[in-house]
Amino acid sequence: MTSRTGYALMRSPMHALPKQNIADLARWGFERTDVIPLWFGESDLTTPAFISKAAGRALADGHTFYTHQRGIPELREALSKYMGRLYRKPIGVDRITATSGGMAGILMSMEMLLQPDDNVVVVEPVWPNIQGAIHIMGGVRRSVMMETGNDGWRLDVRKVAAACDARTRAIFLASPGNPTGWMVTAEQQAALLDLARSRGLWIVSDEVYTRLVYDRPVAPSFLDIAEDEDPVIVINSFSKSWAMTGWRAGWLTHPPSIGETLAQVVQYNTSGTATFIQHAAVAAINEGEEFVASMRARCQKGRDIACDALERMPRVRLAKRPSGGMYVFFEVDGMTDSLAMCAKIFERTGVGLAPGSAFAEGCDNYLRACIALSPEKLDEAMKRVAPLLS
Amino acid sequence: MTSRTGYALMRSPMHALPKQNIADLARWGFERTDVIPLWFGESDLTTPAFISKAAGRALADGHTFYTHQRGIPELREALSKYMGRLYRKPIGVDRITATSGGMAGILMSMEMLLQPDDNVVVVEPVWPNIQGAIHIMGGVRRSVMMETGNDGWRLDVRKVAAACDARTRAIFLASPGNPTGWMVTAEQQAALLDLARSRGLWIVSDEVYTRLVYDRPVAPSFLDIAEDEDPVIVINSFSKSWAMTGWRAGWLTHPPSIGETLAQVVQYNTSGTATFIQHAAVAAINEGEEFVASMRARCQKGRDIACDALERMPRVRLAKRPSGGMYVFFEVDGMTDSLAMCAKIFERTGVGLAPGSAFAEGCDNYLRACIALSPEKLDEAMKRVAPLLS
Repeated sequence: MTSRTGYALMRSPMHALPKQNIADLARWGFERTDVIPLWFGESDLTTPAFISKAAGRALADGHTFYTHQRGIPELREALSKYMGRLYRKPIGVDRITATSGGMAGILMSMEMLLQPDDNVVVVEPVWPNIQGAIHIMGGVRRSVMMETGNDGWRLDVRKVAAACDARTRAIFLASPGNPTGWMVTAEQQAALLDLARSRGLWIVSDEVYTRLVYDRPVAPSFLDIAEDEDPVIVINSFSKSWAMTGWRAGWLTHPPSIGETLAQVVQYNTSGTATFIQHAAVAAINEGEEFVASMRARCQKGRDIACDALERMPRVRLAKRPSGGMYVFFEVDGMTDSLAMCAKIFERTGVGLAPGSAFAEGCDNYLRACIALSPEKLDEAMKRVAPLLS
Repeated sequence: MTSRTGYALMRSPMHALPKQNIADLARWGFERTDVIPLWFGESDLTTPAFISKAAGRALADGHTFYTHQRGIPELREALSKYMGRLYRKPIGVDRITATSGGMAGILMSMEMLLQPDDNVVVVEPVWPNIQGAIHIMGGVRRSVMMETGNDGWRLDVRKVAAACDARTRAIFLASPGNPTGWMVTAEQQAALLDLARSRGLWIVSDEVYTRLVYDRPVAPSFLDIAEDEDPVIVINSFSKSWAMTGWRAGWLTHPPSIGETLAQVVQYNTSGTATFIQHAAVAAINEGEEFVASMRARCQKGRDIACDALERMPRVRLAKRPSGGMYVFFEVDGMTDSLAMCAKIFERTGVGLAPGSAFAEGCDNYLRACIALSPEKLDEAMKRVAPLLS
């Protein structure tokens, strides 16, 4: 046998694959029973019964065969109508492709856009998985850090423009943001879209928290301003608003002209999403508005519980309550190693938080807490962590 | 707006993405009701109820959350034991990673192995999707064509060795083969593994038809001879033997040392497979042997029906009945455009066949028929196509 192990024989970028250290954190918790998991973007609610039952019915009806790569017509039509209602403009079925989750949508986008050494300008702090997708495709992340102050996180669009070079293929931003709750403004969208149009770049807009906003009905979307063939891909997911994290179901909204290519890309990635999952997704879209409203209320309540408690902790700095998303992202005075702090907090209290270091360079003074859990659990979690943040 | 459409702004290899022309064929059939679909590798049986019910129970039990990237422990342990029984040697849980289907397993393998311009030596004729996965990663396929004669398809291992160069990272072969039913021999395996060991290459062995063999209990596997850390990745799927094509569930068997990397790769591809699907997969493994035996018998019966009929058609040449797999791959005298022939046959008879051109250069005189359908449907299909092949 060769002396080289399998590990050594992988392509070299695999040895530097970013560790998804939020998912890794959860391994700490497998042995404990007193865990309050605020480390993921996941509520403590199981998927609503009307959604699960739709999957069960589809299974009983024999929907267990290969299916349409871009999604069953019922789902794409339901999504087209839903998006049209949300953004008050027609979003054609030819712009909709179902994916096996938001993450799969991001990776497939990178597969379509990136040659090796191409770069993506990423607005940060941001969910770290985008970096994994860029890395797999041999691309380079160029970070644009937002600024923070008393009015919360702010993006300077000029910094995005300045970060673009000849090898830039896309601008990636998430709004409402994970971990920040930041939302892009209409003016910034217009400037970014102008930039993309004039330089032939893509905007990959992660909008999976678009329904979880507290100061308006729906977050600003690039679909508000993009024409059909604009170089814009919008990522959506059933995970957050419909409590379907474990289902791995999402969708892309994209120019019609890339639909056929996307069908092939889906074919070579997962060959599509299980039909019975897609039938459940149809139920989520068509019957889920009441649940989405309750999830939004749950997050808003959770935000207030968490912020009320955090504001009383002497070491915590929290400029402005987020008006969207599923998280509170807060600064801890004097903390220089957020991962070590998460470990310490978890070990002593069973409360799982995510370290700021996961979301951007220079965020080691931050922690992220998910606010989608029950008020009782969030209350209890805040009580437990208070002594360590005081 | 830029004058360039989204299509023009994709990376250039996307414009040359291989068309998955088997899946595309099926679009012909969406409008017809008299179709007998022999074009896919899919039986006409819905997934057995004990499997679907296990998914329904898992849903009712609330298994709708994020889960282990490499699969739930119950599934990995069930697969480890199953593989151990099949190959009469221990296959540790640390060598097992659940995937969202065999295709996802292939793409993730290519993600781990290929830098741009690296190549994969592919034994052909072969399922065309491997080419899509190589293409997405910027790799190059180097074809090694098998030979055919009265004793069926034959691989000359020396041709594989000769095709390897400094940029070769893997040898890809499927045994039992799709479309040929060809099976690698123990001697060939040993030679290929020696080659891989000495040159630091990987063997990516697609064994999704391993249980669908008619002359022995299980097909030869590279797991028969590979040590834990040998550079061997074996692709498996629930699709074929358990009639779960639409579920998108499979697994990889691989060196333990790449397990942690694979966890990250799964994270950035699909972030795992729905837990309730994994519970169904556990039921398939633990309670599915009777069904697997019936599927094998169904395919064997289907092979005989198809071959008995094909052998009576004057234009058909069929050297030897395949002893494994889900297909009959047969030559048609005088045919020079297999896709056109498929179109003609489909238009006139409603019988869907796959064109030889999909599986290798120089196979335009071949057609592929799936043999996993009911005897009645196969009988009827053969009756309908006979006049066109006589």
